[in-house]
Amino acid sequence: MEDLTAQVRAFAEERNWEQFHTPKNLSMALAGEVGELLAELQWLTPEQSAAVMSDENLGPRVRAEIGDVTIYLVRLADVLGIDLVQAGMDKLNEAARRYTVEASHSSAAKIGSDNPQAS
Amino acid sequence: MEDLTAQVRAFAEERNWEQFHTPKNLSMALAGEVGELLAELQWLTPEQSAAVMSDENLGPRVRAEIGDVTIYLVRLADVLGIDLVQAGMDKLNEAARRYTVEASHSSAAKIGSDNPQAS
Amino acid sequence: MEDLTAQVRAFAEERNWEQFHTPKNLSMALAGEVGELLAELQWLTPEQSAAVMSDENLGPRVRAEIGDVTIYLVRLADVLGIDLVQAGMDKLNEAARRYTVEASHSSAAKIGSDNPQAS
Amino acid sequence: MEDLTAQVRAFAEERNWEQFHTPKNLSMALAGEVGELLAELQWLTPEQSAAVMSDENLGPRVRAEIGDVTIYLVRLADVLGIDLVQAGMDKLNEAARRYTVEASHSSAAKIGSDNPQAS
Repeated sequence: MEDLTAQVRAFAEERNWEQFHTPKNLSMALAGEVGELLAELQWLTPEQSAAVMSDENLGPRVRAEIGDVTIYLVRLADVLGIDLVQAGMDKLNEAARRYTVEASHSSAAKIGSDNPQAS
Repeated sequence: MEDLTAQVRAFAEERNWEQFHTPKNLSMALAGEVGELLAELQWLTPEQSAAVMSDENLGPRVRAEIGDVTIYLVRLADVLGIDLVQAGMDKLNEAARRYTVEASHSSAAKIGSDNPQAS
Repeated sequence: MEDLTAQVRAFAEERNWEQFHTPKNLSMALAGEVGELLAELQWLTPEQSAAVMSDENLGPRVRAEIGDVTIYLVRLADVLGIDLVQAGMDKLNEAARRYTVEASHSSAAKIGSDNPQAS
Repeated sequence: MEDLTAQVRAFAEERNWEQFHTPKNLSMALAGEVGELLAELQWLTPEQSAAVMSDENLGPRVRAEIGDVTIYLVRLADVLGIDLVQAGMDKLNEAARRYTVEASHSSAAKIGSDNPQAS
């Protein structure tokens, strides 16, 4: 992950793209890539989506979109000075306190959100 | 990163949430968290966004949203059987071939996209 | 729709918010509201989502999110000088030429997109 | 707007696409189109975005994305049985009560949200 961060940074610097890589702009780019990922999955049933990686056409496309999302998330975190893994770990610990195993068992809830939804 | 992946997986399994964690559902959750991140940055100028982490109110909120985005991306990749870092690296290498340093210098382009935009 | 456009414009002007309502900022706000809409539907099955308006808890929340999305889309189109209905009609006509009834029958495709997906 | 709603519905019915047009799927399609809109604006400054419609290349692309977003929003509202304009009007009235002119003057706030941000 550190290696990827460094390589994405070098990629941007070599092209003199730091000027475009503000957090605001990068968050939009991240959302754009997530939109492309959704577009690959939007007409699939949940069951079809679970098998998407064994589809020889869709599988590589989904993997490529995941790659794009990762690049922009890594770049955004680098520009913000945030450690991605630590930020995720901190939120996961907070979610563990909020959604105890007993109270949350088998009911869908949004990690890190105030609006859990009963399934 | 592997540690975070394992902990998010355990978190979901303990709550019996695997049933909700299809790629389709997780991609929606990822988009929802990216939407919350955008909401923190939407009224800021690009310059203000570059200084957002030194704002004692907004900084922790942005970090928390980055954490949520990371959790769902890590979980989605785990469910799909995709190595996030490798997927990012592969797309970065592809982008390096497409956007050569000479041709792309100082002009904004979307990594991994077919529609680069002149700045 | 024209009445809503005028009222949203007056709302922004009275608060001196035109300065924040650039197309860039409004597109982020639109994406943020769409993210909130996704969050309401993310853990539902497609079948549950089809019945969401008869859920006394979720129904009004979904309607409220649709209202927020509409406000920002209307405002964005107003700021850009785009007639929403005409823009939609033009794209629908284009989609009708691209996806003929014969070729597209019963197979999912993304309106206005280059990557239709076989179901 | 009613005419567009009817035409989008006929478009879907003629192709037997109602089966794919669940609220869940349509919300994903809506988010995908919003992502394409963001991609057109992501590297622009707010000022450049304000002039985007006079760019002979970007202007028509932005208009086309707005058209796609409108189509899916109209279709989603139709499937849910929601009157788009009324839903927007209701939320605008709620926002007017929450953000009074006096309290909100010249400070950015997210319509319909609990987290207004001082500019």
